[in-house]
Amino acid sequence: MLKFKFLFLSSIILLSSLGINAQEKPVDLVYPHLDAANSRWFFFSSASRPFGLVNLSPDNEVGGAWGSGYRYDTHEIKGFSHVHAWQLSALSVMPVNGDVKDIKDDYYSPFSHETEIVAPGYHKVELDRFNITAELTSTTRVGFHKYTFKNKNQKSILIKLSGPNGPCAISKGEIKKINSREFSGYVMNASTRRRPKETPVFFHIELNKPVKELITWTDDKISENSKGVRGINSGALLVLKDNLNEPVLMKVGISYSNEEQAKKNIKAELTHWDFDRIVSESKEEWNNWLNKIEVKGANKTDRVRFYTDLWHGLQGRRIISDASGTYSDFTGEERKVKQIPLDKNGMPKFNHHNFDAMWGAQWTISTLWPLAYPKVASDFCNSMLNYYNDGGLIPRGPSGGNYTYVMVGASSTPFVVSTWMKGIRDFNINLAYEGLKKNHMPGGIMAKSGYEHSTSEGGGIEPYIENGYVPHPYKPRIRGMHKDGAGMTMEYSFQDWTLAQLAKALNKTDDYEYFLSRSNNWKNLFDKSYGFIRPKDIDGNWRVPYDPYEYQNDGFVESNAAQMTWFVPHDYDGLAELMGGKEALVSKLNNEFAQAKLQGFTAGKSHSDENRKRIRNISINYGNQPSMQTAYIFNTVGAPWLTQKWSREVIDSVYTGVSPYVGFNGDEDQGLMGSLSVLMKIGLFQLDAGAAENPKYQIGSPIFNEITISLDNKYYSGKQFRIVAQNNSKENLYIQSVKLNGQPLNRMFLYHNEIISGGELFLKMGAEPNKELK
Amino acid sequence: MLKFKFLFLSSIILLSSLGINAQEKPVDLVYPHLDAANSRWFFFSSASRPFGLVNLSPDNEVGGAWGSGYRYDTHEIKGFSHVHAWQLSALSVMPVNGDVKDIKDDYYSPFSHETEIVAPGYHKVELDRFNITAELTSTTRVGFHKYTFKNKNQKSILIKLSGPNGPCAISKGEIKKINSREFSGYVMNASTRRRPKETPVFFHIELNKPVKELITWTDDKISENSKGVRGINSGALLVLKDNLNEPVLMKVGISYSNEEQAKKNIKAELTHWDFDRIVSESKEEWNNWLNKIEVKGANKTDRVRFYTDLWHGLQGRRIISDASGTYSDFTGEERKVKQIPLDKNGMPKFNHHNFDAMWGAQWTISTLWPLAYPKVASDFCNSMLNYYNDGGLIPRGPSGGNYTYVMVGASSTPFVVSTWMKGIRDFNINLAYEGLKKNHMPGGIMAKSGYEHSTSEGGGIEPYIENGYVPHPYKPRIRGMHKDGAGMTMEYSFQDWTLAQLAKALNKTDDYEYFLSRSNNWKNLFDKSYGFIRPKDIDGNWRVPYDPYEYQNDGFVESNAAQMTWFVPHDYDGLAELMGGKEALVSKLNNEFAQAKLQGFTAGKSHSDENRKRIRNISINYGNQPSMQTAYIFNTVGAPWLTQKWSREVIDSVYTGVSPYVGFNGDEDQGLMGSLSVLMKIGLFQLDAGAAENPKYQIGSPIFNEITISLDNKYYSGKQFRIVAQNNSKENLYIQSVKLNGQPLNRMFLYHNEIISGGELFLKMGAEPNKELK
Repeated sequence: MLKFKFLFLSSIILLSSLGINAQEKPVDLVYPHLDAANSRWFFFSSASRPFGLVNLSPDNEVGGAWGSGYRYDTHEIKGFSHVHAWQLSALSVMPVNGDVKDIKDDYYSPFSHETEIVAPGYHKVELDRFNITAELTSTTRVGFHKYTFKNKNQKSILIKLSGPNGPCAISKGEIKKINSREFSGYVMNASTRRRPKETPVFFHIELNKPVKELITWTDDKISENSKGVRGINSGALLVLKDNLNEPVLMKVGISYSNEEQAKKNIKAELTHWDFDRIVSESKEEWNNWLNKIEVKGANKTDRVRFYTDLWHGLQGRRIISDASGTYSDFTGEERKVKQIPLDKNGMPKFNHHNFDAMWGAQWTISTLWPLAYPKVASDFCNSMLNYYNDGGLIPRGPSGGNYTYVMVGASSTPFVVSTWMKGIRDFNINLAYEGLKKNHMPGGIMAKSGYEHSTSEGGGIEPYIENGYVPHPYKPRIRGMHKDGAGMTMEYSFQDWTLAQLAKALNKTDDYEYFLSRSNNWKNLFDKSYGFIRPKDIDGNWRVPYDPYEYQNDGFVESNAAQMTWFVPHDYDGLAELMGGKEALVSKLNNEFAQAKLQGFTAGKSHSDENRKRIRNISINYGNQPSMQTAYIFNTVGAPWLTQKWSREVIDSVYTGVSPYVGFNGDEDQGLMGSLSVLMKIGLFQLDAGAAENPKYQIGSPIFNEITISLDNKYYSGKQFRIVAQNNSKENLYIQSVKLNGQPLNRMFLYHNEIISGGELFLKMGAEPNKELK
Repeated sequence: MLKFKFLFLSSIILLSSLGINAQEKPVDLVYPHLDAANSRWFFFSSASRPFGLVNLSPDNEVGGAWGSGYRYDTHEIKGFSHVHAWQLSALSVMPVNGDVKDIKDDYYSPFSHETEIVAPGYHKVELDRFNITAELTSTTRVGFHKYTFKNKNQKSILIKLSGPNGPCAISKGEIKKINSREFSGYVMNASTRRRPKETPVFFHIELNKPVKELITWTDDKISENSKGVRGINSGALLVLKDNLNEPVLMKVGISYSNEEQAKKNIKAELTHWDFDRIVSESKEEWNNWLNKIEVKGANKTDRVRFYTDLWHGLQGRRIISDASGTYSDFTGEERKVKQIPLDKNGMPKFNHHNFDAMWGAQWTISTLWPLAYPKVASDFCNSMLNYYNDGGLIPRGPSGGNYTYVMVGASSTPFVVSTWMKGIRDFNINLAYEGLKKNHMPGGIMAKSGYEHSTSEGGGIEPYIENGYVPHPYKPRIRGMHKDGAGMTMEYSFQDWTLAQLAKALNKTDDYEYFLSRSNNWKNLFDKSYGFIRPKDIDGNWRVPYDPYEYQNDGFVESNAAQMTWFVPHDYDGLAELMGGKEALVSKLNNEFAQAKLQGFTAGKSHSDENRKRIRNISINYGNQPSMQTAYIFNTVGAPWLTQKWSREVIDSVYTGVSPYVGFNGDEDQGLMGSLSVLMKIGLFQLDAGAAENPKYQIGSPIFNEITISLDNKYYSGKQFRIVAQNNSKENLYIQSVKLNGQPLNRMFLYHNEIISGGELFLKMGAEPNKELK
């Protein structure tokens, strides 16, 4: 089972040239090293389950939220740490040989990709300095380690309780010896501007063999035969017996609640010492998840990339609740351990989650999860409502049980509305509506700019309501990032439209009309003389100087006017009218694509590239969220062949290829870009996040010949929905005709109901556009 | 008289801080080293008269049309050459000490600015290697040299008859000894892509002392006591007598006709050996010319810069006819020497000229010359008609008596029409109209793209007439530069409008209506979806990819869509209508200025900067011709205070300061940028080139308190026209009220008639705009 190697790609290429596809299991296709040369702290994954609380993997760089974690081109391991999450890390450990004095501040080891095996749920690496083989696997909440020491003497496991560890320092920590095989404690994540409260993460360690001794230290004061240590600048060695000839196995339960729950997580998930069984179960679990979307056709590299993309869509936004349903609520002054409600079987009704921004979720996970993983969508809605109950706001990116106020706007609204509209309704919609509406009003989350923790001003909701737009510049004295009024106005308008749809569905007519009216606010910022959105100040003056292509810092959040002009997912008819008709819109957007193509549709191949002025001033950027819907606009304004053309060109240029140096341009953003790639490749895309009544899916140009989506019968009536693209190839990317369940379809979109009741979409493909199909 | 030094600037700054202005003579203010660090072959000037056929100066670099001639930062003199013209050079000489074998291929000498004196009509420099003081002055057609040898032996004057000399190589040459004091010959300018015929320039040398010997060589074959030499790889030494203790004086007459005329030019202009007298007369002549525009106020650095700018406006476009009126016609297969008609006194009726493109003349010399130097404007019109008689086309940039077809379009039309409309009518207007009309039709100069010598296709006049625009791309197989259809369309439309005005004045109603209709063609390329001009292909498709700010190679000649959109000098009302009204136009243009300001209104500070992609994609560029009218557009659309604001900001940023490192961004273009600067600083600007009936001058914001233009009574009835700007300063740049001859003026422009009849424009200035004045 573990015979496949990191270097399996050469055989993939061989196989693919032979067109062989038999017996291919999706999990075997996942290539975890994708984009690993550009990795940020929470990107890389190996020993992790879907949305796993634990994601255990080697860290080659430990300083900072960017450029840290597993970095392909850094050939030194600095520890195996258990959590790589938004603004958080957890316990880092490292098997070593050596005397405590020598090793405590100098334990990093070189390693080589040559002897490494990396797969979903498994990581094997040789620590060349110590001649130790380290293997890692995990359950959802427990890291499982297997260390094979080849040097006889001074075998130990180092426990890191201080120092840099990704997005923040470990400011202090504690380890206590319970018995010679059990230890528990915590590490404290120092506060950051983004997550202002110090946040502990707890651990419970169990070994399969008793240790000889626990050695601890604080600064240079070393305690042999220690019972534990606590404080800053501390650490510990679990010293193994010299006569131990077998590999040592270690379980590390992790919990955000307390040490007891960390221990209980082990008890709930990992009661035996069969390492290979957990590797095998982990692989099987991933395969079951990935297999919800089965693809045939294209070449093997394309399929490898597809399942790697999908795999990324199913992690990053990690579970934070314990197996028992306890979790840490840190929205108030004091951290509290609370309990998720239990179902009739005594199991928590949902998993609680951590996540980076929902900014961009409307075109990615808002479609992918409800379609193929409706329970995940439901869990996230319940999770958000849990935050609402605890802290009074539906979050847009919580960390450590508290809000971070990352990015801007009420970016969770489209996700919640989309989930509800699709018939996933096992959450309290009245409470959700109350929370969402609160977010859209003064004092809510729209009132807060990026990381504006203690005030509610930078978001500009008051002038948005009063003047019809968020001015730019606006309230420079307020601390907060991304106070980009024009960008906020665009996002708020769309979010208002999605909330209006929910209000309508809930028969709240006044609210519907109110938010629908607000959803036109973007029009106040359309400057006809440039044909682009343009920032306005509080007095109604257009921003000067203004360049439609100038990136950020000019009224737009991680984007520019050119990109944000297309951010009207709810009103392309309105945009067409302002641009002089649909033909003018199509012509202009087509040119913006042609321009962006000159740069490969991205502002560079890594996050740092985006700081280069020339390269980031791009018309459309498929390396970040703000304009990633643009290829599908053509579908709604009478030119679907251009959706087919440009979505395929973007896939070929941005989301094709498999190596540590390509992938998501250094910022996959916790499943967002992975999900986007998946949706573009299966040819289904929801421009309006699916937030309308009876949501629509735009039909794009799938790259596969056959795609089968297994439907979750807890939510949907159909068994599976299949897409067949006959005569499909890199050249034959244009749809010639469309049939749904054998009947010709005279539109280029499907309704959600048509998909979830099961059936088949049949596309006949060809090399030339059929412009009759509109 | 020659006491002022190169380093006089420090005293200028001192004087200016004292506000001293007394007894200042314009010629003493000229600073020839301006922009000399960025000099191109024909830019620098010292020993030259206004429009002088001879412009004698040291060459520090001799290879290429760019980066050659006098270059401030190259501290080595490689010869003193007599002509620095468009695609042409003439005899280069160098006083030396040394044996012919040692010196013939190695005669360059270091020099220092410390010991140099440079002024209009005079250049003094120490050749440090030889310890020779070289002084240069000139009449219009004769270079006058004074060499003071301090080393006793082997004093010689080297005559360069081959090798690189600016825009082309000297392919061969000849020198003949007439007697021990006289020599004659020619140098042959090799053909170039731009000037395809080999072109000789003749010389006649006279010394004030007999030489000991003429030594000549071809390759390494040296002939002592030579009677002359002819051919390639040749050269000569005029060996002076060893006992010569006085400075040697040398006259070099230059002619494009033949050696006889070179000699006659000496006879006509320089019959004595009084070197200082010629220096003095040269200075006096320059002062008389410069004094036609007298300025008071601002600071001394501003006045230095102003007269240096004006001085540049009166040279570069050099005389090519002899004192007798003979000239070289090289439009046919064979070169012919022809004769300019003589007046009743036996003098040539006009001077014939060489010039680089008229491209950009419409906003520069088309105003400056007719206003203050009407005889020059008349001469150029007659000169153009002379080409028409000889070669069948009115040229847009002739060199060596033939067309070069530099740049595009019928750029001479606005100049000729403007001259005529202003009452300067001593040229044959019917012949001119015939020639101009020919230029605007198939087979004429509009039919020819850049340097398209032997065909008439690349200019795209046929589709311009048939389809209403020049397509882009267009006829890639045709050899020719600048085949930028959208740029051509813009220029042709305006040129058509100017021709229509002349047709109307000449009562050619059908032609008037025809060309007036064509003058709307630019509208066919206005893309409302961007609010900018956009190239179209032959099938009517907009250019894709298209970026309004992308420089050149994208349908625009040395510019971009953003800049060329404003190139409708004849129809800002039409542009405003397309942009959504005058307010929208003003708002947009104001923003384009604000954007351009971020880069100081230029695409870099030297010609080579313009190759830098980031910097050259600028909204408005005051470093080149295409958008140099833009500040004055506000005057015509109801916002003259923005003309005042932006023209002053441009002056401050681009045309202020005095050093070898600032000036015209490396490309003054033979008087164009100098004239532009003069016009902006005196606050008079003709958007439409003054080509309308009763031409208008837009009133801008003069930088001086008082400006007096002396009117030429051969053409105009008034004696002088004065502009007074009361309360003017760097801050008080806004016009508060306007009076003409004591009466309030309720418009922001003057008619030509109002100026040439003499009088006073009185402007009251202040720090805040008076928006009532429109």
